[in-house]
Amino acid sequence: MRAPSTYAVIMAGGAGTRFWPASRRARPKQLLPLAGAEPLIRQAVERVVSITGWERIYVSTGAHLVEPTLAVLPELSRDRLLVEPVARNTAACLGWAAATIARVDPNAVIMALPADPHIKNVAAFQQTLRLALRSAESGIITTVGITPTHPETGYGYIEAGDASRLDGVLQVLRFVEKPDRARAEQFLATGRYYWNSGMFFFRAADLLRAIESHLPALATGLRELDDAARRDGEAEALGRVFPTLPAVSIDHGVMEHVKELAVVPGDFGWSDIGSWLAASELGHKDERGNSAPAATVLLDAHDNYVVDLRAQSPEPGAQPGAPQGGAGERHRKRVIALVGVSGLVVVQTDDALLVLHRDHAQGVKRVVDELAARGDAELT
Amino acid sequence: MRAPSTYAVIMAGGAGTRFWPASRRARPKQLLPLAGAEPLIRQAVERVVSITGWERIYVSTGAHLVEPTLAVLPELSRDRLLVEPVARNTAACLGWAAATIARVDPNAVIMALPADPHIKNVAAFQQTLRLALRSAESGIITTVGITPTHPETGYGYIEAGDASRLDGVLQVLRFVEKPDRARAEQFLATGRYYWNSGMFFFRAADLLRAIESHLPALATGLRELDDAARRDGEAEALGRVFPTLPAVSIDHGVMEHVKELAVVPGDFGWSDIGSWLAASELGHKDERGNSAPAATVLLDAHDNYVVDLRAQSPEPGAQPGAPQGGAGERHRKRVIALVGVSGLVVVQTDDALLVLHRDHAQGVKRVVDELAARGDAELT
Repeated sequence: MRAPSTYAVIMAGGAGTRFWPASRRARPKQLLPLAGAEPLIRQAVERVVSITGWERIYVSTGAHLVEPTLAVLPELSRDRLLVEPVARNTAACLGWAAATIARVDPNAVIMALPADPHIKNVAAFQQTLRLALRSAESGIITTVGITPTHPETGYGYIEAGDASRLDGVLQVLRFVEKPDRARAEQFLATGRYYWNSGMFFFRAADLLRAIESHLPALATGLRELDDAARRDGEAEALGRVFPTLPAVSIDHGVMEHVKELAVVPGDFGWSDIGSWLAASELGHKDERGNSAPAATVLLDAHDNYVVDLRAQSPEPGAQPGAPQGGAGERHRKRVIALVGVSGLVVVQTDDALLVLHRDHAQGVKRVVDELAARGDAELT
Repeated sequence: MRAPSTYAVIMAGGAGTRFWPASRRARPKQLLPLAGAEPLIRQAVERVVSITGWERIYVSTGAHLVEPTLAVLPELSRDRLLVEPVARNTAACLGWAAATIARVDPNAVIMALPADPHIKNVAAFQQTLRLALRSAESGIITTVGITPTHPETGYGYIEAGDASRLDGVLQVLRFVEKPDRARAEQFLATGRYYWNSGMFFFRAADLLRAIESHLPALATGLRELDDAARRDGEAEALGRVFPTLPAVSIDHGVMEHVKELAVVPGDFGWSDIGSWLAASELGHKDERGNSAPAATVLLDAHDNYVVDLRAQSPEPGAQPGAPQGGAGERHRKRVIALVGVSGLVVVQTDDALLVLHRDHAQGVKRVVDELAARGDAELT
């Protein structure tokens, strides 16, 4: 028997106000180069393309993000985008993806991965993916649990039980909501708890069956969409049916109710980059703890994080093709200078500047709220 | 006998790196709205125009500053600009101004004022000017000394002696260089010392006579310029003669050697705005000590000073005359947000951003030095 084909579904629907002013409604976190030179979604795709090839990568996103997503993934065929007319959380997202892929390949094995985590050790990550896929191929829905490094209270946890038949794979006992500090410390002490990474691995048919059992309303909607797609009527059906689907996470709606579930513990330098503080801790820093574009002037400055996302602007008066233009237009020089400051996050875009102390990373959401309250929606 | 006419010479040649990135070679301090909505030079002119009228105001500046200076002083006739081909310090500046004005009005009384101090109490300042002018009209070169409020080590001092014949005017005993802290405290304790404001009041003929006595080389050059001007050959002579004039301050070169000199003590909220720190202490602050454009978002932020000098940019895609354009083009909204920071100076221009802690205001010069060392002269 030929091995079933592997597909990736990259979940890239996130809105995200935590990275204002870099993140906007039309430019959420996954489109930003928050750790490394490439946007997070491109890094996510490049991590799996050696396993699936481009033709078996699907990207799930919102209608307003189609063009910016294709712009950073020019290799992706437009029909590999799963464009949700409205966001209905991850159960609907992955159910629709599974149904869509099953239509072209009933034996498909799918890895569903968030577009926006940062992963330091890509080789170790890919090894974990391969193991999780093998587990999924055996008919058991599988997740990846991150080996915790500290008693984090911002993540959900997965409690693992006995080993499964596959070496390196454990049975899932239960999913646990974000704990308080004391419980998180207990979790860490047992050695049995893992961070819920939001990655899921399954045969398309297995997930659809689990949805049938645990979210029958979603299953009904997905069948309606599938029937319409087989009659070339998917576009119309999406706008009509998708908004009626239950908006529930795959974790709550399905995974917590599935009897036999597996978890592959992973340790590959994972971060969900939940705030500017988390972003500032990734990537290269100089010997004074600063992370900033090379041209930044840093005097008596340490532990700062500078992001410059301004579009290149042509130099005023520069003539395209003028002698000094060289290969193209000359660009006007710009500079950021930090003097006598520390612990700052400085984010410069074309229409906004954020100067934030890293201890106040949670305050970003309040900036977005204030701009919205003012009626400055164009800045959010 | 008719009272002699009063002229003002506004000295506006300063280069100034202390206000980078607001100040540039082509936009020195006096062209910036550092305290109030108007550029400092415009404030300086508006303070004296009620005394002299526009036609008797001269502005001394450099060739590269002609257009930006006229742009903020559109009422000024171009022939009232004294354009120095190279800067040769204040003795040459004021000597040339006195010779030029004396040619059209041999009885002229001149007040020579720096373009860039901030003055809080304009009425008191004007009263002081009128008294200093009366003193100068009597044939005694006169200066204004600022009643010191603290033992400042960044200014020169004037030691005053006995009262002169004119009420409120004192004799000058001597000029003193910037003192150290201990001497500054002694100065303050005596009550006899004043800050040297760099303002001078004189009959044109008196200053030219003093230059003749104490700076004969300058006097020779000025005579050559004057002769050329009487033959309509000033432009040519300026380029040839001006660079050869001795580059010395009017204080050192002339005033310290003049026997009879008067000082009018003044107390009108004077600041020379020597740094971003000084600028941040002027002007309106909110109840948390922040001074920032109205649109700034300030969360958990106090004692910050925000300056936004970006040019208004039209909204991308905005059509002039389109319905929503109203009276003109719509402008793209922009915002600056400060979260959890205090004591910062944040200056945003089109091509640079400075984030500076106020305790490091002296570090600005080092930024300019570093940019120059990199070859980024266009940013300085």
